[in-house]
Amino acid sequence: MLGGIDLGGTQVRVALARSDGRLLTTIKTKTSLVRTPQLMVEWAAAEIDRNRHGQKVRSIAIGAPGPIDVSKGILVNPPNLDGWRNVPLASMLSRATGANIHVANDADLAGLGEFHQGAGRGTRNMVYITWSTGIGGGLIVDGKLYRGAHGTAGEIGHMIVDPNGPLDRCGQRGCLEAFCGGNNLARQTGHPAAELFKEAARGDKQARIVVEGAAHHMGMALISLTNAFDPELFVIGGGVTHSWTLVQPTLVATLKSSPFIKPARRPRVRRARLGDSSGLVGAVEWARANQ
Amino acid sequence: MLGGIDLGGTQVRVALARSDGRLLTTIKTKTSLVRTPQLMVEWAAAEIDRNRHGQKVRSIAIGAPGPIDVSKGILVNPPNLDGWRNVPLASMLSRATGANIHVANDADLAGLGEFHQGAGRGTRNMVYITWSTGIGGGLIVDGKLYRGAHGTAGEIGHMIVDPNGPLDRCGQRGCLEAFCGGNNLARQTGHPAAELFKEAARGDKQARIVVEGAAHHMGMALISLTNAFDPELFVIGGGVTHSWTLVQPTLVATLKSSPFIKPARRPRVRRARLGDSSGLVGAVEWARANQ
Repeated sequence: MLGGIDLGGTQVRVALARSDGRLLTTIKTKTSLVRTPQLMVEWAAAEIDRNRHGQKVRSIAIGAPGPIDVSKGILVNPPNLDGWRNVPLASMLSRATGANIHVANDADLAGLGEFHQGAGRGTRNMVYITWSTGIGGGLIVDGKLYRGAHGTAGEIGHMIVDPNGPLDRCGQRGCLEAFCGGNNLARQTGHPAAELFKEAARGDKQARIVVEGAAHHMGMALISLTNAFDPELFVIGGGVTHSWTLVQPTLVATLKSSPFIKPARRPRVRRARLGDSSGLVGAVEWARANQ
Repeated sequence: MLGGIDLGGTQVRVALARSDGRLLTTIKTKTSLVRTPQLMVEWAAAEIDRNRHGQKVRSIAIGAPGPIDVSKGILVNPPNLDGWRNVPLASMLSRATGANIHVANDADLAGLGEFHQGAGRGTRNMVYITWSTGIGGGLIVDGKLYRGAHGTAGEIGHMIVDPNGPLDRCGQRGCLEAFCGGNNLARQTGHPAAELFKEAARGDKQARIVVEGAAHHMGMALISLTNAFDPELFVIGGGVTHSWTLVQPTLVATLKSSPFIKPARRPRVRRARLGDSSGLVGAVEWARANQ
């Protein structure tokens, strides 16, 4: 059997799956109920133990917010998990479950999930982008998750899209996230990002300009990624999927505006299909790839 | 035996190598002497035949300027080869030599050459960037050349580094090549790029500002590539290697200026080592990978 855990700022999800990746049981709870590393690990291990029905769980992958030291399985200082610093997640989970533990970036695993069972099925090379309060991503290269030399590939939110742009909270000017991240949009407009997108959908002119501007900047990142990486497909996940009809036309139009990217090599742009489950599905797939 | 061909705007090179990639014989000539596809193919096939000493040459790779239809082995319309349009290079070479022919982008093969026998030895994930009149590149992923879904990965010169920047000849505004490519620098300053770099080396203030500005924009592309792709190493080849001490400090300083790229994951930046031979070495390695 395989296990998957998706550790988010709002929810924690656990899945048990057959060794071919088919999900058998999924459990979720509020992160606020298991808010220390020790509590979260105890809860997840107990759920896994209760649902394995006597079978051995050999391999468990957990997706967590970066930055992560993937080689040591340590969560460094995830911005959405207050008080979690240098948490040795791999060794804690290994002790609690007896399984081999694989810690990975949540956006990487969401991309892997979409690749195997969502919008990316049937492709070989795709870029997954999660567009919510922050911007992250995951790269699939020749049918496999590519994590880079230090496990930090896919940090698409910190590509520079305009060096004269606003200062990002990372300290760098003109990051994609500074233009598109929900937190930054909220700060710039004084409205929560979800409200801004709703107002734009209702036809509010000012909100529309802001949202389309953000989508245009995202589109420029798609151009740069297409030239650097030549994917077949972009899959866009995260909160923005709820405003897909607002952003999709601008994304595609911006990509089409690049004369260097001929139609024959222009990637498709799709909305993620697995919703909140992409990370959990990806965790199971990552456990499967590393069993 | 393996064969490699490097077809450039100035020179054509041919190599014969053992099946482990060790070079045995190299031959070069001026492109102007074999300036039609038919002449070039005849010359290369004759040189290969003369130097194979009775052995069979099973696999030959040829690096050529893009754009290339890699699946069909067709050169579409290389800007530096006047009058070459939709040249079916793979089928022509296959008929002339009887070998399996693999056509690839020249910058991809230069990157592969540097990876196997040059500045990239010992790494697993690297980005090669050729910085000359134009800007190109090649990606090595987990020890292999990654060409993307349509064989056009590594078109680093057309990443957007500043959407308000100058118009590139590709028709897009703010491409890396528009800021750094030798042709564009020459157009902007009214001096050939080689002269400009020489003047900067001599200490000319105005020339220095231009060269350092170009290196700064290249450095921003390195930041974006590091965040997207997380390589261990950037290898910089092309004409700029002759002005390495001028550009290297700015490249490294710009990369270091990114607070999101912590020292532990900051890629090294090295000058290419194989000079004019990187493409030919890479062609032999590509023939070896596909034999």
